Amino acid sequence: MRILHHLPLSPQSRFVRLMLTEKGLPFELVVEKTWEQNESFHKLNPAGEVPVLVEDNGMVVPGSRVIAEYLEDAYPDTPLLGRTMGERVEIRRLVDWFERLFQQEVTVNLVGEKVEKRLFGQGHPDGNILQAGYKNLRFHLDYVGYLAETRTWLGGATLSAADFIAASHLSALDFLGDIDWRAAPCVRDWYARIKSRPCFRDLLSDRVSGVTPPAHYADLDF
Amino acid sequence: MRILHHLPLSPQSRFVRLMLTEKGLPFELVVEKTWEQNESFHKLNPAGEVPVLVEDNGMVVPGSRVIAEYLEDAYPDTPLLGRTMGERVEIRRLVDWFERLFQQEVTVNLVGEKVEKRLFGQGHPDGNILQAGYKNLRFHLDYVGYLAETRTWLGGATLSAADFIAASHLSALDFLGDIDWRAAPCVRDWYARIKSRPCFRDLLSDRVSGVTPPAHYADLDF
Repeated sequence: MRILHHLPLSPQSRFVRLMLTEKGLPFELVVEKTWEQNESFHKLNPAGEVPVLVEDNGMVVPGSRVIAEYLEDAYPDTPLLGRTMGERVEIRRLVDWFERLFQQEVTVNLVGEKVEKRLFGQGHPDGNILQAGYKNLRFHLDYVGYLAETRTWLGGATLSAADFIAASHLSALDFLGDIDWRAAPCVRDWYARIKSRPCFRDLLSDRVSGVTPPAHYADLDF
Repeated sequence: MRILHHLPLSPQSRFVRLMLTEKGLPFELVVEKTWEQNESFHKLNPAGEVPVLVEDNGMVVPGSRVIAEYLEDAYPDTPLLGRTMGERVEIRRLVDWFERLFQQEVTVNLVGEKVEKRLFGQGHPDGNILQAGYKNLRFHLDYVGYLAETRTWLGGATLSAADFIAASHLSALDFLGDIDWRAAPCVRDWYARIKSRPCFRDLLSDRVSGVTPPAHYADLDF
């Protein structure tokens, strides 16, 4: 059986889980405690990070963006990176936006401070970093709102990896209760649509020791 | 004519210049002073960053990794992201390694502190950040050395985007005199090979106001 080494609150892992499920590819999840520096895991991925996909034929594919491109190459039947050249540029631009800008400006500051610091035994969250994260989150929610208001899905007319990467980051923040949905109605409407898809079900039932998600987290009519 | 908006010392811009030249695609360079927050440039790329490629047909492609995938989709004749599934995974893994890990752990700490801070009017380099950058650089040079010693090119048997992304980051650091080549002979041998390719010539003649590269920078027999 195909295996995905992951961590429940890692947006990068969530992104790959959504891509795999949407493409109809079954997989088993293995939690990888990356902070324990497991030697056999470092052989799979010298970067020491999740997600890592291991195929039945032994092919090892490390890293969310490498996996996304691999899945599109290997299983093109349900295209999630666009069909036309223009769609492919726009969807990849948004994957890059979330995996680089949103990751550095929001996810590292909030999920990193609140969850990873504790897991890695690096002490308490830094108030200044959290504040910067919340400020950046408002800017990014405005941008997602603009995309959601002017397009059917974030990347254009069809559901794509752009929706999955955005929803992966936002769902991790929502788990921590960090999103004020009242202030972002267009984002909420788009998120309610993607949250109600079958591929999202597993993500919403994840639990992380020491963190209780808000009541609306798994509620499809939040 | 195809246009590439760039900055001379941006490794991301250098990567795209090498890809374009190696694929035999002519282009004109336009320097984009991103710190001036030019409104028309933000329309091309909402992230406000170089590189941005503008094709003759008006297609706008922002971001180094988006451009690399686009060039491979649009001009597949000289493949630089690999031919087999395994090659494609390994080359993309290394592009991800340099664009994420090397970028955050080395390039931001050294090129960011020494050049960008000055351009953005953010004061002098921070000694602690530089020190962290040099320490991380030693680790990364060991890893590149291991790849260079065990393979013909960094990504495998053939020249690929993995070589170009590594050489782009290292050439920017070399411009600043930050690489001790005596301590990394395998890396030096590989770099001498890639530096002598025609596609590298333009990069080596770049000049940046206020920075003088070391004598060996453009020397092919350094």
